[in-house]
Amino acid sequence: MRVVLAPDSFKGSLSATAVCRAMAEGILRAWPAAELLWRPMADGGEGTLEAIAAAGHVVWRQSCVSGFDGKPVEARWLWREGIAILETAEVVGLHQVGDLPLAERSSRGVGELITAALDAGAREIWLGLGGTGCNDGGAGCLAALGLRLLDAHGQALPATLAGLAHLARLDWHLLDPRLQHVRLVLMSDVTSPLCGPQGATFVFGPQKGADAADLATFDARLAHWAQQVMPHSGAPWHESAGAGAAGGLGFALLTLGGEYRSGSAAVAALNGLAEALTGAQWVLTGEGRTDQQTTLGKAPWRVAELAAEARVPVTLLSGAVDRQARTVLAQRFAGYFSICNGPQTLDQARSEAAVLVADAAESLTRLFMLGGRYHMYLS
Amino acid sequence: MRVVLAPDSFKGSLSATAVCRAMAEGILRAWPAAELLWRPMADGGEGTLEAIAAAGHVVWRQSCVSGFDGKPVEARWLWREGIAILETAEVVGLHQVGDLPLAERSSRGVGELITAALDAGAREIWLGLGGTGCNDGGAGCLAALGLRLLDAHGQALPATLAGLAHLARLDWHLLDPRLQHVRLVLMSDVTSPLCGPQGATFVFGPQKGADAADLATFDARLAHWAQQVMPHSGAPWHESAGAGAAGGLGFALLTLGGEYRSGSAAVAALNGLAEALTGAQWVLTGEGRTDQQTTLGKAPWRVAELAAEARVPVTLLSGAVDRQARTVLAQRFAGYFSICNGPQTLDQARSEAAVLVADAAESLTRLFMLGGRYHMYLS
Repeated sequence: MRVVLAPDSFKGSLSATAVCRAMAEGILRAWPAAELLWRPMADGGEGTLEAIAAAGHVVWRQSCVSGFDGKPVEARWLWREGIAILETAEVVGLHQVGDLPLAERSSRGVGELITAALDAGAREIWLGLGGTGCNDGGAGCLAALGLRLLDAHGQALPATLAGLAHLARLDWHLLDPRLQHVRLVLMSDVTSPLCGPQGATFVFGPQKGADAADLATFDARLAHWAQQVMPHSGAPWHESAGAGAAGGLGFALLTLGGEYRSGSAAVAALNGLAEALTGAQWVLTGEGRTDQQTTLGKAPWRVAELAAEARVPVTLLSGAVDRQARTVLAQRFAGYFSICNGPQTLDQARSEAAVLVADAAESLTRLFMLGGRYHMYLS
Repeated sequence: MRVVLAPDSFKGSLSATAVCRAMAEGILRAWPAAELLWRPMADGGEGTLEAIAAAGHVVWRQSCVSGFDGKPVEARWLWREGIAILETAEVVGLHQVGDLPLAERSSRGVGELITAALDAGAREIWLGLGGTGCNDGGAGCLAALGLRLLDAHGQALPATLAGLAHLARLDWHLLDPRLQHVRLVLMSDVTSPLCGPQGATFVFGPQKGADAADLATFDARLAHWAQQVMPHSGAPWHESAGAGAAGGLGFALLTLGGEYRSGSAAVAALNGLAEALTGAQWVLTGEGRTDQQTTLGKAPWRVAELAAEARVPVTLLSGAVDRQARTVLAQRFAGYFSICNGPQTLDQARSEAAVLVADAAESLTRLFMLGGRYHMYLS
């Protein structure tokens, strides 16, 4: 009997791989002969590389690039047969922000990482967008790739929100020509446009440390940046769903010809989830908290869709499950469960998450096994 | 497909019948054609009558008897073909205590209820012991049945802990002679003796409102009471396991020739649990909180034993499950689960218990159903 483990991370407590490990421990307690396939999931944000690497057939690489403030950071990425897989959170992750004000942070390192992939001879570059701490509209990334940002006097500007305040002209002549020949795939489940009330600044700015008083100003700078870019790109990419991902990196990469893909769908494609489902009898997925957002296409939902296509039953095991989503969850999952084994605080559940996942997976397996046993009774 | 629902009550939130109702709601959401047999459980304490009545074949009766303080209370009981089924908590339930000090409370009404059963022509009287607020060693009960408690001057004493302080002599001549011809069965899962550190006073006195300073005094009075009874009963019944049940009512009824039976086993016998299990494919049980005490023989454990004998898989769904018991629970149950759907307080879980039970039962059923579906795949 083959079981596929395809959880997202439990944010704040366990990486997706750690959830797989705990699920495996519990399942094997109940069913030592189970064949387990680990397919940890991600949505393009933090943990994307780890999720893709877990399925194998990739090589880890590492490049030294600029962090938010220009200081070097070591960014990991993956390589598989001419395909480079990058994760923006490795370069400009929200956890690396430190004290630097949002207006001073640059996504330059992402452009440097793309350059490293081009230098390695990549035919395709897949970028996981999400979990970032910048909001420069991807200006830093494009600058690193050769775009020059100039003020009214023709002076070069820093590629940050602060620099965009003085932006008068763009010089595209030095943009890396190799970008025209590489397939660029953006992986994200964010559907925000670049600007406006649903845009990068208003939706994600506060959690990146923006003062409420600055939001309108920053939003206007990104709108100005988009207007400057449009004559070159020829299309209003800033209005596209996903342009607001990763502080506007989505916008910048769309202007370079990037294709937008759902992050969880892309991760599933890269880690071979669909192939793993073939011949499996059961799938376990889950996440830190499941609510109605989940049913709009988060990783467990994607797993459930693929499982349905493969006609494999899928069970959800999350840290918490919001009752409000129960009707639609019940339609999609062969049972949705919380890891909590009784009344407890969020902190307790987080700190004990690994043992709670293992215990719950063990019990789910014992119940699932009744199927086989019932079958024996019948025959 | 037949499913037996045999939960204990969730103390503080749902009666066993209410748990059955919630479980049924959830199961039928997932599996509208399921045939459900309700066998709510109890341990001899509060809810025992309701659990037995749920299986049918009984008539409800009601008698007006004395409460703790002599004021009338309406006590329900059950009648089935010459068998009277009584519940001490109906007469002297802990919730009916009011302001009366423990030393003034009498179990007299229990004796009156036994008299009512004798008057009705009972051949057997089954008494559920537990959930009581008295600690008079059953003196009140015996007094109501005709025993006279006398002081050194031959004056009649109140049949309470206060009265026992002056007890010098017992007069058994007026004890109801019908007691010699009736089968008396005591239902309780309490195994305390009457006196001593494991006895009724020290173990249960505090939760009945006894001051810590009075425990030794009260315990000595019950020991004195037992010494007075022994010449008549001819055996040290106060040392028996269960003599300390229901504030010593266990002791008093043992001296009358009562047989002691595990409360949950007796309830299972009276509500026909074993018969219901025949031909069932699955059993759900549960309780408010499952811990290592459960595995010493509480109602869900009893259900699991009977299910094992009938070779029917049994799943546990409780308010909370203590991890410490997980190894032994895993051996006995096809999955043990909490109703909690995420981090929450005990109050939240209690106030939402019905919907949480229903949701969890629905998910368990969807997972259980995979058995049947998997079977279909194979065939």
